[in-house]
Amino acid sequence: MSDLEKVLATIDADMDGALERLFATLRLKSISTDPDYAAETRACAEWHAKDLAEIGFEASVRDTAGHPMVVGHQRDGSGPSVLFYGHYDVQPVDPLELWENDPFDPKIITRPDGSKMLVGRGTADDKGQLMTFVEACRAWKKVTGKLPIPVTILLEGEEESGGVNLPPFLDANLEELRADYALICDTNMWDKATPAITTSLRGLCGEEIVVRAADRDLHSGFYGSAASNPNHILARILADLHDDTGRVTLAGFYDGVPELPESLKESWAKLDFDPAEFLGEVGLSVPAGEEGRSVLEMTWSRPTAEVNGMGGGYQGAGFKTVIPAEAHAKVSFRLVFDQDPHKVRAAFRDHVKARIPADCSVEFHEHGSGTAVAFDTSGPAFQKAQGALTDEWGKDAAFVGGGGSIPVTTLIKTKLGVDVVMVGFGLADDRIHSPNEKYELESFHKGIRSWARILAALAE
Amino acid sequence: MSDLEKVLATIDADMDGALERLFATLRLKSISTDPDYAAETRACAEWHAKDLAEIGFEASVRDTAGHPMVVGHQRDGSGPSVLFYGHYDVQPVDPLELWENDPFDPKIITRPDGSKMLVGRGTADDKGQLMTFVEACRAWKKVTGKLPIPVTILLEGEEESGGVNLPPFLDANLEELRADYALICDTNMWDKATPAITTSLRGLCGEEIVVRAADRDLHSGFYGSAASNPNHILARILADLHDDTGRVTLAGFYDGVPELPESLKESWAKLDFDPAEFLGEVGLSVPAGEEGRSVLEMTWSRPTAEVNGMGGGYQGAGFKTVIPAEAHAKVSFRLVFDQDPHKVRAAFRDHVKARIPADCSVEFHEHGSGTAVAFDTSGPAFQKAQGALTDEWGKDAAFVGGGGSIPVTTLIKTKLGVDVVMVGFGLADDRIHSPNEKYELESFHKGIRSWARILAALAE
Repeated sequence: MSDLEKVLATIDADMDGALERLFATLRLKSISTDPDYAAETRACAEWHAKDLAEIGFEASVRDTAGHPMVVGHQRDGSGPSVLFYGHYDVQPVDPLELWENDPFDPKIITRPDGSKMLVGRGTADDKGQLMTFVEACRAWKKVTGKLPIPVTILLEGEEESGGVNLPPFLDANLEELRADYALICDTNMWDKATPAITTSLRGLCGEEIVVRAADRDLHSGFYGSAASNPNHILARILADLHDDTGRVTLAGFYDGVPELPESLKESWAKLDFDPAEFLGEVGLSVPAGEEGRSVLEMTWSRPTAEVNGMGGGYQGAGFKTVIPAEAHAKVSFRLVFDQDPHKVRAAFRDHVKARIPADCSVEFHEHGSGTAVAFDTSGPAFQKAQGALTDEWGKDAAFVGGGGSIPVTTLIKTKLGVDVVMVGFGLADDRIHSPNEKYELESFHKGIRSWARILAALAE
Repeated sequence: MSDLEKVLATIDADMDGALERLFATLRLKSISTDPDYAAETRACAEWHAKDLAEIGFEASVRDTAGHPMVVGHQRDGSGPSVLFYGHYDVQPVDPLELWENDPFDPKIITRPDGSKMLVGRGTADDKGQLMTFVEACRAWKKVTGKLPIPVTILLEGEEESGGVNLPPFLDANLEELRADYALICDTNMWDKATPAITTSLRGLCGEEIVVRAADRDLHSGFYGSAASNPNHILARILADLHDDTGRVTLAGFYDGVPELPESLKESWAKLDFDPAEFLGEVGLSVPAGEEGRSVLEMTWSRPTAEVNGMGGGYQGAGFKTVIPAEAHAKVSFRLVFDQDPHKVRAAFRDHVKARIPADCSVEFHEHGSGTAVAFDTSGPAFQKAQGALTDEWGKDAAFVGGGGSIPVTTLIKTKLGVDVVMVGFGLADDRIHSPNEKYELESFHKGIRSWARILAALAE
C-alpha cells in the first residue's frame, strides 16, 4: 500500500472526526459584516489556529485593522511550495425565518435517495471547503508524519465583508507568504459528478451615475416635454450601451479581447453543457447577449455590461405625474483577458457625458475595479491537479471559466506573481449567501481525498 | 350710477365681511382624503349651504356615497343660465412642521411692500376662489335684490380625493344642473397683473408596466449577457418612446393633433412669456421637447410622453451585481385636441410588446385616461368674460392653455354638453397642495369684482 493509499484509507476511517471538527467551526458565528459578532469571529480565527497547530502547523492569529487572519506553516517536504487560501467568515443569516434549521447548529440530512448533505451557514462557503484541504493535511501528517510539500495556509476573516485588509496584509508579509503556487478552495464542481479547475475569472468595473436636471421635482402637466426628464436621459444612456447585435458600444471596449484559444474552445465544447437547461432553470430560454456567441462564451470569456440597478421618479403605489429632479443607475462591466478597467470606466463616462443635455449634469461614483485573470492550463500545477482530480472522481476534471470575480485570486497573482489553482467542490444549488446553505457530504469526503491526491501529485 | 357700479362699490365696502365669511369656511378642516375629518368635511358643506341660503339660494346638502355635494339655485333674471363649479374640500397639511402658521387659522399677512396675502390651507385651492363667485352673487342680491342671470352653484367635497362620486351625481341630476354655460374658478391668472381664461386642458393617459425576465434575481457574474436583463429591456422601451427630434414614436400618436388655429397662435405670441425665465426658475435653460415647437406649444397644445417613474434592481447604498427579475415604469401621456386615450394606450402597449424578448413577459396597469378639452374662444361666453376681465384689470385678459388636466371640465363638457369658462385668480406661487398655501388679497378682492362684471356681461 502506497503512502497515498494509506492516507486515503485514513481519511475514510476518520470521517466522523472530520465532521466533528467541521461542525465545531460551523457553530461559531463568524459573521464578519456585523460588528455584534466581532468577538465570535475572532474566536473562530483562534479555533482554526489551534486546529492547525494540532496538525503541526506553526500557526498564529494575526491582527489586522479588521478581523484577524490565520496563518500556518509547515516547512516539511521538498518540491514546490504552495499557499492555500480560504476564508473562515460567513454571510449573515437573515431572513432567519426562511431557514429550516438553526443556521449555526449544523446537521447531516439524509435524503430519500440515501444521499447526505451538511446544512448550515458556512457549510459550502467556505468552512466546509477550506476544511477539505486542512483534513487532507491532517491525514498526510498522521500517516507519514509530514506533508508531501511545504504548505502555508492563509485564512481570511473578511471575505464576505469587503476584504479591505487583505491587500495590505499581503504587502506586509510577501516574503512569508511566497510560494510556487497558490491553491484556493472556494469554487464549484462542473456538476456533481465532474470535478473542475477554474482557470479564468472575469474582472469588474462598477460605476454609479446620478443624472440631474431641474433643481426640484416638477409637475409633468406643467413642464412636460419642455423640461428635461432625467428618466428619459438615463433610459437613452442605458439603452445605447448595447447595439442591435448585443455588442457593447463603448469606444475601445473590445480592445484586449482576443478570440478564445482553440484548445480551450475544444475543451469547453466537450463539456456536457445545455444552454436551454442553464437558462431554463431560472425560467428563461433565449440567450440575450452577443449574436453568434455561445452561452459559455457569454458568461466566461466575453465582456459584458449589465445595469444592476436603476431608478428615478415615483415608484410607489398608484401614480404621480412628476418629472423627477434626478435619476440614477448602477452599471457593472465584467472584463476579460487584457481589458483595462480604467479605460472602460473612462469610455463609459464619455458615453454618458455625450448624452447629458447642456443644462443637466451627471455625477459619477466608482464602485470597484479589477482586471480579469486567466491562467495557462498547460502549466505543471494545472496538469497535476487535473490528473489527481480525475483519479479521484473517475471522470475527466474540467477546466472551466468563472463568470464572476474572486478578488483574492487577482491579488495573489499580482502581488505574489504566482499561478492560482482554483479547485472547489461546491455545487450550483448549494444556496451560498441564502437561507438553508448546504454542502454535499460527498463533496466534503471526496474533496478531502482530492486534496490528498493533489498534494501527492504536486510533490512528484 | 349703474347697477354694476353700485355692486362694485358694495363689494369694496364689504371686504371685511367677505373675509370674515371666507375665514369661517377656511377654519373648517375639510380634508376629504382623511376619514378622520369626515364630520368636519360635512360641517363645511353645511356651512356653505347655509351661506348660500342666506343670499337667497335654494340650497341643500346632497348626500353621495362619499362626501356630500352642495347645490344652490337662484332662478332670478333672464338671459343664459350658468352652472358654477367649485370645491370646498382641501388637501392634507402634512408636513405640518413646515407651516409658518396654523393651516386652519387663516391670517392676512402684510408684506414689506404693503401687498397683502391670505395664508392657510384652502385660501387658493379652492375656498378662496369659489368664494369670489359667491361674494359677487351676494353683492348683486344686496344691490338689486336679484342676480343678473339664473345661477346654479355646485360645490364638490372630493375634488382632492379622486372625485369618484361626481360622475354619478351629474348623471343623476342632469336636468337640475343643466345650464347654458359652466363657470369654474380653480385656475390661475397669467401673471399677477394679467387675468386669464383657460380655454384648453390636456387629456391624460397613464400606464404602468412591469417587465419580467428570470423567475428570480440572478448574479450578473454568472448570468450576465446570457440572461435577459429587465433593466435593459425597460431602458430600450423608454428610450424608444421619442425620436431624435423629440417626437413621440408611437404609431398614430399624432392622429387628431392639428396645428394651432392662427388666431390662438397670435394671441399666445402676444403673451409676455419668456421661455428662458420659465425654465430658469427651476434651474434649466434648454427646452427639451419637440424641435421647432415653442415652450408654450410644448406645454399647452402638443401631446407629450413622460416617464414619471422607473426602477429595477438594486437601488440602495453601495453596489450589488444583480440582474433583477423585474423592472417597472410609470408613463403618462398628455393628450390634446381629438387624441383618443384608448388608442394611445393601445399603441403604447404595442410599442412595449414589440420590445419584450420571447422568454420575458410584461404586465400592464391602467392609471386613468381622459380626453383633452378645448373650447372655441370666439363663442359669446368667452368673449363677454374676456371683456369683463379686461375692464376690471385694465389689461387684456389672455386666453391660455392648461398643461394639466381638470377632470370636472371634461365631465361637464361631456355630460352637460356645454362650454366651460375657466376663470381663476390664483398665481403660480400660491403653493397649493404644499405648506404655507396663500392667496393674494388682491386676487380675492378683484376676483369678486371680476365675477360681478362677468355676471353682468353674460346678461347682456
